[in-house]
Amino acid sequence: MLGKKKLLVGGLSALVVGALLAGCPPKKELKTEVGTAEVAQKVYVPPGKYDEFYAFLSGGFSGQVSVYGLPSGRLIKIIKVFSQDPETGYGYTPETKPMLMTSHGFVPWDDSHHPELSQTDGVPDGRWLFINANNVPRIARIDLSTFETTEIIEIPNSAGNHASPFITPDSKYVTAATRFSVPIPQKDVPISSYAENFKGTLSFIKANEPGKMDVAFQILVPGYDYDLAHCGKGPSYGWCFFTSYNTEQAYTLLEINASKNDKDYIAAVNWKRAEECIAQGKYQEIPATYYHNYYDEKKHMAFSEVKKSVKVIIPKDCPGVMYYLPTPKSPHGVDVSPDGEYIIGGGKLATVIPIHSFSKMLKAIEQKAFEKEVDGIPVLKYDAVLHCEVPKPCLGPLHTEFDGKGFAYTSCFVSSEVVKYDYKQCKVVDRAPTYYSIGHLMIPGGDSAKPWGKYLLAMNKITKDRYLPTGPELFQSAQLYDITGEKMQLLLDFATIGEPHYAQGIPVDIIMKNVKKIYPLAENEHPYAVKAEKDARVERKGNEVHVYMTMIRSHFVPDNIEGIKVGDTVYFHLTNLEQDWDIPHGFAVKGSEDAEILVMPGETKTLVWKPKAPGVYPFYCTDFCSALHQEMQGYVRVSPAGSNVPLKYYTGTPTAQK
Amino acid sequence: MLGKKKLLVGGLSALVVGALLAGCPPKKELKTEVGTAEVAQKVYVPPGKYDEFYAFLSGGFSGQVSVYGLPSGRLIKIIKVFSQDPETGYGYTPETKPMLMTSHGFVPWDDSHHPELSQTDGVPDGRWLFINANNVPRIARIDLSTFETTEIIEIPNSAGNHASPFITPDSKYVTAATRFSVPIPQKDVPISSYAENFKGTLSFIKANEPGKMDVAFQILVPGYDYDLAHCGKGPSYGWCFFTSYNTEQAYTLLEINASKNDKDYIAAVNWKRAEECIAQGKYQEIPATYYHNYYDEKKHMAFSEVKKSVKVIIPKDCPGVMYYLPTPKSPHGVDVSPDGEYIIGGGKLATVIPIHSFSKMLKAIEQKAFEKEVDGIPVLKYDAVLHCEVPKPCLGPLHTEFDGKGFAYTSCFVSSEVVKYDYKQCKVVDRAPTYYSIGHLMIPGGDSAKPWGKYLLAMNKITKDRYLPTGPELFQSAQLYDITGEKMQLLLDFATIGEPHYAQGIPVDIIMKNVKKIYPLAENEHPYAVKAEKDARVERKGNEVHVYMTMIRSHFVPDNIEGIKVGDTVYFHLTNLEQDWDIPHGFAVKGSEDAEILVMPGETKTLVWKPKAPGVYPFYCTDFCSALHQEMQGYVRVSPAGSNVPLKYYTGTPTAQK
Repeated sequence: MLGKKKLLVGGLSALVVGALLAGCPPKKELKTEVGTAEVAQKVYVPPGKYDEFYAFLSGGFSGQVSVYGLPSGRLIKIIKVFSQDPETGYGYTPETKPMLMTSHGFVPWDDSHHPELSQTDGVPDGRWLFINANNVPRIARIDLSTFETTEIIEIPNSAGNHASPFITPDSKYVTAATRFSVPIPQKDVPISSYAENFKGTLSFIKANEPGKMDVAFQILVPGYDYDLAHCGKGPSYGWCFFTSYNTEQAYTLLEINASKNDKDYIAAVNWKRAEECIAQGKYQEIPATYYHNYYDEKKHMAFSEVKKSVKVIIPKDCPGVMYYLPTPKSPHGVDVSPDGEYIIGGGKLATVIPIHSFSKMLKAIEQKAFEKEVDGIPVLKYDAVLHCEVPKPCLGPLHTEFDGKGFAYTSCFVSSEVVKYDYKQCKVVDRAPTYYSIGHLMIPGGDSAKPWGKYLLAMNKITKDRYLPTGPELFQSAQLYDITGEKMQLLLDFATIGEPHYAQGIPVDIIMKNVKKIYPLAENEHPYAVKAEKDARVERKGNEVHVYMTMIRSHFVPDNIEGIKVGDTVYFHLTNLEQDWDIPHGFAVKGSEDAEILVMPGETKTLVWKPKAPGVYPFYCTDFCSALHQEMQGYVRVSPAGSNVPLKYYTGTPTAQK
Repeated sequence: MLGKKKLLVGGLSALVVGALLAGCPPKKELKTEVGTAEVAQKVYVPPGKYDEFYAFLSGGFSGQVSVYGLPSGRLIKIIKVFSQDPETGYGYTPETKPMLMTSHGFVPWDDSHHPELSQTDGVPDGRWLFINANNVPRIARIDLSTFETTEIIEIPNSAGNHASPFITPDSKYVTAATRFSVPIPQKDVPISSYAENFKGTLSFIKANEPGKMDVAFQILVPGYDYDLAHCGKGPSYGWCFFTSYNTEQAYTLLEINASKNDKDYIAAVNWKRAEECIAQGKYQEIPATYYHNYYDEKKHMAFSEVKKSVKVIIPKDCPGVMYYLPTPKSPHGVDVSPDGEYIIGGGKLATVIPIHSFSKMLKAIEQKAFEKEVDGIPVLKYDAVLHCEVPKPCLGPLHTEFDGKGFAYTSCFVSSEVVKYDYKQCKVVDRAPTYYSIGHLMIPGGDSAKPWGKYLLAMNKITKDRYLPTGPELFQSAQLYDITGEKMQLLLDFATIGEPHYAQGIPVDIIMKNVKKIYPLAENEHPYAVKAEKDARVERKGNEVHVYMTMIRSHFVPDNIEGIKVGDTVYFHLTNLEQDWDIPHGFAVKGSEDAEILVMPGETKTLVWKPKAPGVYPFYCTDFCSALHQEMQGYVRVSPAGSNVPLKYYTGTPTAQK
């Protein structure tokens, strides 16, 4: 993919330059070692059987989360998070619009990067999935009993929320950090005053109580680009680690100017210490406007609240809260081994994979083995914290996960491969090509204290000729490997929605036991819900008309409405009375700004309609619901403004029709 | 799916009622006859190999088209048609918003039902794919060299454009018809005046010249619900056939009131005769406002024109233009055999599958074997046109396709199965269960003069327990069958985006040879394109600021901009200078109402930004494009309104930074 174009390769090593200029590997037809039949069976899930793992892949520029089954690679759901969804009306209906409100106004879509499962004792527990928005910094909580987004917290004092939302082993916090440093708080200053005025923040967000996400505290840090993070576990519980690049503090042409230093930093943050400083008042309360949006599952409605300030720790006022670990070169991933001892940096321009030791780090701190200090943050000596450098592993190492058997797997963007190595012995034991340009990889549980292993999923940035061509725009590509043997075995290519920057995998049993199949009608507290056809009605309030409508196979009540006028705003409040799984109904009326919506069993949703011209307009069910689905329709009569046609509504019976 | 709820089953036969009340088949784990290994191999496409067929599935309530590879069932693309796409900015950017304009204003999404490939000599030729919008009646053309929507025509005098867009064998016309009858033209009348005031239209849309879609003519017909269509070929070339239901002309509680008549009609339209009447002036020119939107691929921009009238034929003024064929009972599908002789109705409440004979129909017309006339339209005698009724085929027959070997395959919604029969002998030879509630089915080329056969795809309405549960909302389900043998063999379940109402399949070679990989930069005629970095610039025009920006690995030019003021509207016109396949770049700036966009190689797109507060805002590439993708970023400085900070922009070099 780094094809034939001239590339600006300023400060890069000769090795990387060579690779950058070498272009993509040519298309290969892969031979599998054991023959197609055996491989085919490994990924084939016969009709009626279930996959073994749920995989949650971020949508990147789609702003959503895609749910796949593994090993089949089948897409089974797109979870609506940071983007309007024209299918269900998410982000369009009055009930869901508040979910996408921010201090910058309504943001119709965003860039979602890193899904992260909640954990208990360092092991994914299947309760929630968190994911970040990068462009307008936010973190969302997805409830894995409904696979719906139930909460979004905005991150103030941030730009480019990339190192997010990585979780502590007890789900107490998820992280957020500025990929782009900016004036904090924002102010109108020359861009050239970057070194003086631009700062970063590392944020810790309360995550363990649904409906109560908030920014616990932020740490104000030097103006580097903070990239990725992972939190410690076991012995390193209480710490989180963040990569940074652009320690050069460039603000233009970063591809050259931010690639000069041989080492950048991993920031090691002692959040337990930060909690102490907060308790001791060693922070500044800074005014900051940010939104907290949450979805009330019983009211079937989202609400926003605006928060006004945030606690910020200045490192020099809270000694011991963080240290920098020098790490070659422009590191991307930072990944902690299941036992919590090893911290692996993915130096994307490095020719080695550096592995730091947490116990050596503690010792170096104790011995004050500092190289220097930056803004009150000690920089530890590289040799004092390094466990080893994996020699000549690959080109462009990015991100690492673990199989729980003593091996680490690092994705290598430039050389398009996965390298497997013994991270204690620092010895490469296997490598497998990927097609093409792998970004992150995922092993189920592979970033936790207890990886389930078995599969490795490569998420590749370039697809080119891997699937049937679909014009200039192509889906991206995932590749599934069997990692149960000594050698990785490529099983399957499958295309992905958006750009999966990262993923999480979890055995299906953990999720399945909690999944809800319907919304209980009896618990529906939507203010415009009706729970029986007899209560369906139409009410006028000035120019507003509220239609309390029910849906059940195969009719609406009411299905004939007259007395609507041009100039009215009509609110169709639709309650799906079904209480069986997988019986949604839809509603569409011609010319609605909101087009049409889907309503799940037991749910209430609202479609807003401002009819523009007199006439008789049909409405209909948009989700094929029964043999008589096509008959599930009705009419609204719209009269001119000022007309005296009275409000009238009914569902016909043979009697009523006369 | 027709579960435990009480159902209103007014006029239905006892047989159907029994099935309606019986509920879903229980979940079964299917045994394949030949063992998993062989079946697995039949659908397994090894990494690096291609699928055999492109399959285009409508998105239903998603408003889009999904592209799958068969036999693997892998989703490889979502084509943006009738819905805003938060991933690419389709329907949000100034370039693409005109595509979604209608006489009802901007419609952010719709309900897409029936993809239809262009044909030459009755065989799909891979040039274009057409698809209808049901809610706000429209037809779109998708260019299969780019997989992008290039044209949308609105259908006036219509509501619920369902019997659409079925094509003539030479691609001269695609059809459109009113699923919901309405006053034509629209007027404010009581709904109870349905029989008097409500009419349908059958429309023929010019399809064979890109950029020139238009309504050739409409036929005003009685106020029934027109459901589906297919056009004749071979001997029946010059005719199209439309099903209708609700010949009862009910307007409320249709599930009872429109299910009373034992037979409804298939409308047989002689469009050659209609052309004669148009040529002879036997039509009325009716005022009608409707939009024609087209996308100029070189300008990278969509344009709308508003049309003002339409030619309408009244059947009694054009004798011979159409006939009704009585057809049991509430027919859904109408499908013409590859040889053009047999017309199969899918009477969804019928207990037989009626097969009409085209040659018998011609003879009946000649002999005036009429039962009666409706609004000047002769109703032919059922026995005079019937070839046969396939006896006791299944419950709820809906839709039929052909394998080219003398067999028809009909989907049966109520009994959840596909039935295979010899349509000349009228003899069922095989049946296969589907899970659950099949709607339409698709055989590659199965609705054309030359089916490719091999596979049958069942598109099922109910998914329930076929995949891992994902909460109350589930994807729908497709099932792939091998139809090369005497018995259909179920191969694979895969989940689908939205609700696929219909699909088209075509061998990959036909499409692949024409697919474009980039947009040639030299041909880019976007008024704000820049084709070299030296031409990048920023221009102020009052409160409008136009940024002519380039993107190439791994930087923007300019990447630092100052002198923007609060109150400005900033237009980022982004040109991707890459000319390699699969190197898109993205652009996001914090707080933009349009969030972020993707730009393909050689393309120009515009993102509109209205900064709300002073500060310095980062922008960045949202599509991982190189090893230095994370470095592809820049800053915009925003000063207060009235500030005197001058306009300034650059991309730094080591010199420029000083």
